[in-house]
Amino acid sequence: MSMSLTTTIGLIAGVCTTSSILPQVIKILKTRQTSDISLLMYVFLTLGILLWIVYGFMINEMPIIFANGASFILTISVLVLKVKHG
Amino acid sequence: MSMSLTTTIGLIAGVCTTSSILPQVIKILKTRQTSDISLLMYVFLTLGILLWIVYGFMINEMPIIFANGASFILTISVLVLKVKHG
Repeated sequence: MSMSLTTTIGLIAGVCTTSSILPQVIKILKTRQTSDISLLMYVFLTLGILLWIVYGFMINEMPIIFANGASFILTISVLVLKVKHG
Repeated sequence: MSMSLTTTIGLIAGVCTTSSILPQVIKILKTRQTSDISLLMYVFLTLGILLWIVYGFMINEMPIIFANGASFILTISVLVLKVKHG
């Protein structure tokens, strides 16, 4: 199976943007502190990512679905931890 | 000019994800403090967004180009301010 250049660039883009959310998740898991986290920012980000997944399915572009699927798991985790820890 | 449902969903997704970067930019412009900002996170995020723009042009999807174009201006601003203020 060979992958097109377009798909490859999309997947590398996804690894970069999804990775950038990871440090925040790790920090919260370590410190259990979420008071400095903006709830509104993560509500917007999670909603946006969810809409990107819908859009990815509509135009049938796998890198968009995969990248935003992974990002969604991370941002919804931050949201759950924020609601839990306040 | 009428816009397809797909394009509309993509643009709303873009408004949500791009908006989520704004509070950080405003905070830095107010405080001029960037020491708590992760340089590596913003390098990854900016590189990823740049690749999404390339990908958007390759599959010719306007919402991806617009959303990531706007996000790029914001994340590169954070990077410049981080390098300037340390």
